[in-house]
Amino acid sequence: MTSLFDHEPWIKKVDLKLTPPSLKDNTADTDRLIKGVKKSLKTEKVHINLSLIKRLPHLLRESNYDVHCVLFEEDDVWQLTNISSARPDALICGLAVDLGTSTIVIRLLDLLTGKALGETTFLNPQVEIGTDILTRIHFTREPSGLERLQGVLIERLNQKIIGLCKTHDVDVSSIVGAAVAGNTTMTHLFLGLDPYWICREPYIPVLNNPGLLTAKESGLGVMERAPVLIMPGVGSYLGGDLIAGVLASGLYQQKEPSILVDVGTNAEVVLGNDEWLMACAGAAGPALEGGVASMGMQAAPGVIDKFMIEPRSKAFQIRTIDHKPPIGICGSGLIDLVAFLFLANMIDMRGKYVPDQCGKRLVVMDGIEHLVVVTESESGTGKALTLSQPDIDSLLRSKAAMYTILTTIADMVSISLKDLSRFYIAGTFGAYIDPRSAITLGMLPDLPIQTYVPLGNTSLEGACMALLSSKARQKAYEIRDRITYIELNVNQEFMNHFSAARFIPHTNRSLFPSVKEWRILAG
Amino acid sequence: MTSLFDHEPWIKKVDLKLTPPSLKDNTADTDRLIKGVKKSLKTEKVHINLSLIKRLPHLLRESNYDVHCVLFEEDDVWQLTNISSARPDALICGLAVDLGTSTIVIRLLDLLTGKALGETTFLNPQVEIGTDILTRIHFTREPSGLERLQGVLIERLNQKIIGLCKTHDVDVSSIVGAAVAGNTTMTHLFLGLDPYWICREPYIPVLNNPGLLTAKESGLGVMERAPVLIMPGVGSYLGGDLIAGVLASGLYQQKEPSILVDVGTNAEVVLGNDEWLMACAGAAGPALEGGVASMGMQAAPGVIDKFMIEPRSKAFQIRTIDHKPPIGICGSGLIDLVAFLFLANMIDMRGKYVPDQCGKRLVVMDGIEHLVVVTESESGTGKALTLSQPDIDSLLRSKAAMYTILTTIADMVSISLKDLSRFYIAGTFGAYIDPRSAITLGMLPDLPIQTYVPLGNTSLEGACMALLSSKARQKAYEIRDRITYIELNVNQEFMNHFSAARFIPHTNRSLFPSVKEWRILAG
Repeated sequence: MTSLFDHEPWIKKVDLKLTPPSLKDNTADTDRLIKGVKKSLKTEKVHINLSLIKRLPHLLRESNYDVHCVLFEEDDVWQLTNISSARPDALICGLAVDLGTSTIVIRLLDLLTGKALGETTFLNPQVEIGTDILTRIHFTREPSGLERLQGVLIERLNQKIIGLCKTHDVDVSSIVGAAVAGNTTMTHLFLGLDPYWICREPYIPVLNNPGLLTAKESGLGVMERAPVLIMPGVGSYLGGDLIAGVLASGLYQQKEPSILVDVGTNAEVVLGNDEWLMACAGAAGPALEGGVASMGMQAAPGVIDKFMIEPRSKAFQIRTIDHKPPIGICGSGLIDLVAFLFLANMIDMRGKYVPDQCGKRLVVMDGIEHLVVVTESESGTGKALTLSQPDIDSLLRSKAAMYTILTTIADMVSISLKDLSRFYIAGTFGAYIDPRSAITLGMLPDLPIQTYVPLGNTSLEGACMALLSSKARQKAYEIRDRITYIELNVNQEFMNHFSAARFIPHTNRSLFPSVKEWRILAG
Repeated sequence: MTSLFDHEPWIKKVDLKLTPPSLKDNTADTDRLIKGVKKSLKTEKVHINLSLIKRLPHLLRESNYDVHCVLFEEDDVWQLTNISSARPDALICGLAVDLGTSTIVIRLLDLLTGKALGETTFLNPQVEIGTDILTRIHFTREPSGLERLQGVLIERLNQKIIGLCKTHDVDVSSIVGAAVAGNTTMTHLFLGLDPYWICREPYIPVLNNPGLLTAKESGLGVMERAPVLIMPGVGSYLGGDLIAGVLASGLYQQKEPSILVDVGTNAEVVLGNDEWLMACAGAAGPALEGGVASMGMQAAPGVIDKFMIEPRSKAFQIRTIDHKPPIGICGSGLIDLVAFLFLANMIDMRGKYVPDQCGKRLVVMDGIEHLVVVTESESGTGKALTLSQPDIDSLLRSKAAMYTILTTIADMVSISLKDLSRFYIAGTFGAYIDPRSAITLGMLPDLPIQTYVPLGNTSLEGACMALLSSKARQKAYEIRDRITYIELNVNQEFMNHFSAARFIPHTNRSLFPSVKEWRILAG
């Protein structure tokens, strides 16, 4: 996806052979260096700070005026971040960081070529303090709560950076820049800013646009003057991760309106084209990610990620990750499962189990109906994997929220969802979900399947682009400034849409003509 | 002198009443503050750093969105340096510092009115390590030598700042800016930069233009984000003190060519007008300051600062500081003394004692001729104060150097010294010296007495101007960029001029017509 932008770096290295001083040229050390850099970069504005200046006189003389400089650009000023003896073959590297609430990804990039050298994915260590954002925000009221949340995060990031560098034989000090994309709360916790007011009406973040920090300020253990770009956000529920996503999708520069959906803790949606961008966010996430169902799990070996029911035999066909015995189900598997239960008439349009169709798979435990999806003997856990009626109800509320968010935002700009030219789905959710199942449930609109485009980790991709390209970085700020954010929590229209969307696929069946076809086929 | 510039501050305070957030205006805390500041200052660019942002959410809510901000401007960007609850009556203060090799002066200024609140003058504590610049530069080769030189200086400055604030009932934290003017070596020692190459051919400073630092970077114990402007210099022997001097003199904006002379460790000279500026520096200082003669001293109670010889009686008339019994002689007194010895024919035009005219005042001690200036019984030290032949020789070398510097620089731009409209003399030297005596010796050119203008501490005055006025600060940089520096040490013409200038007043007597008149009168 990085091909959207040419490689126009805003972090550069310069190798300089300076003319040594003489009585005819008694230019000061600093002026001599800066003159050389200006000439090499063809720029007028170069800054250097006192800590580098202090090292300069010895360095110039020891290196015989043959030096290696690293710089970055901000507001047309090139800032020197490091100087050493000439190292013409030296790598300069950068880090793109996707600061997810649950999962963090760090990618190591060669800043000269723009190529990825490696990547590491790991659990956000704050999960041990609180799995969700709200718990963490509450935890900031504990003594030193904020410091602890920030501390464990920075510590883990630095461990992983060292590990990543070792694996790829890169010196940590040759990391001379980074770009970090996270939601607004994660950005606050990373920077040590109090997120307390983010989750309280009227939902005020401390800041949306941290701009560039130094590695030292941010706590990242790379070259201390390295710039760290924090992807800008729009508000409490629309963070830098989504701006990175819009950047990575290219949606902002297309003529026809498209939509980008990122399902994480919240579902975040951006609709627009090269002229306008609307965004909203809503609590549709956890159930869709499989996080709510009793058998729900995050993707891992043995987790069911695909599911279907044989139309004739009604036999359940499951696919698990790494073909291990089943131990749970992830979001994409759950959506397949419930969609096929509907297509096989085992649940009705309200999502209620139809005992006649379920047969002996339907059992009652503690007064609640459960469908046995995987029997005790087939299961990798030694226990049957079951789906309860409340699990389905919860998923349907989430899918209704998802569809409602989509229709509400489309209504606001008087666009029919049918007119969308592209429907981008970000994240692991987008990578695994079968759009046909999501349409069957009425979670996503009934568009031709090829309209749906899974994008993978757009937060990480957007951060990479902004790190590598000056134009991409500028675009990120432009996107941020162009986005109109709609607060759904205070929207009455939202509640009306929501009630209609709780059925499968919808109270207005004409919105989902293809679902009828599939059902007959399946039935 | 500050009236040269309007009060156009680049350090300001802003008192803001912000509208608290609501669902209709959920602007982030930082954006809300910055929006308010932009509106108040009518500017587009306002920056705030992470450490201030961290305090912001609590501060805004505790102060009920009624806040006091301090900012400074650099390159059209206003940088926030402090935020607190509203304090509409709060003072904001600044410091102008003249960082002399021997003497340091700190002036405390009210930045709102531009008025001086107080001042303190004290000995540079580095004098204990080395009285002159060269000794200090050599001392930087000792282990931790540079750190010690910087350390004692910063420590003393901070003590004196605390004392000055106490005296004038000002809180140290309300000092939100400073401007520091010093020669290039002093600037290096203040910043902890290695001055080693300043005194070695080809005389290279680490830097000439440190620009703005924060108080924290500089070590000054005032508000930590306060900007500290280091007056820019031109080269190893033309520092920020002289740029401050040119700024204070106004020479750079006058149509007619004028000259500015600052006699300190070196004699530094700037010649020019509103179109061009030439500068040079030379070792003419110490003897002129009285530092070389055995009875020489810096100005203090009991030191002879004026001297004359009654033409008829040849009686010596002395004036001492505070009318105390004489203990020594300062530069101005010494120049008077030697000039009057010449007018009274007690020395000849080569500066040699004329025994016939000196009478019993001339004594020989250890084979060297001494003139008894103050007898044992009149002296405040209990010992006679005498002037030796070598003392005179040394003064004449210095005065010759001074005059040679003046003629060399004037020759370079084909100007006759007689055409100078103003002859500014900076420093205590300028304040005390009698131009008539200096002309008699042939140290200063034979211009009408009213051409000579003593300016006082122009280094301090220039620093004040640059601290108080945005335009003055800009002018300082412009002056620096406009100055052409001439290296005299490598100038053959200099040596030719020098030999001719060692006589009193000069081998070419026609250059000093008025001296002849005076001599006849005195004789």
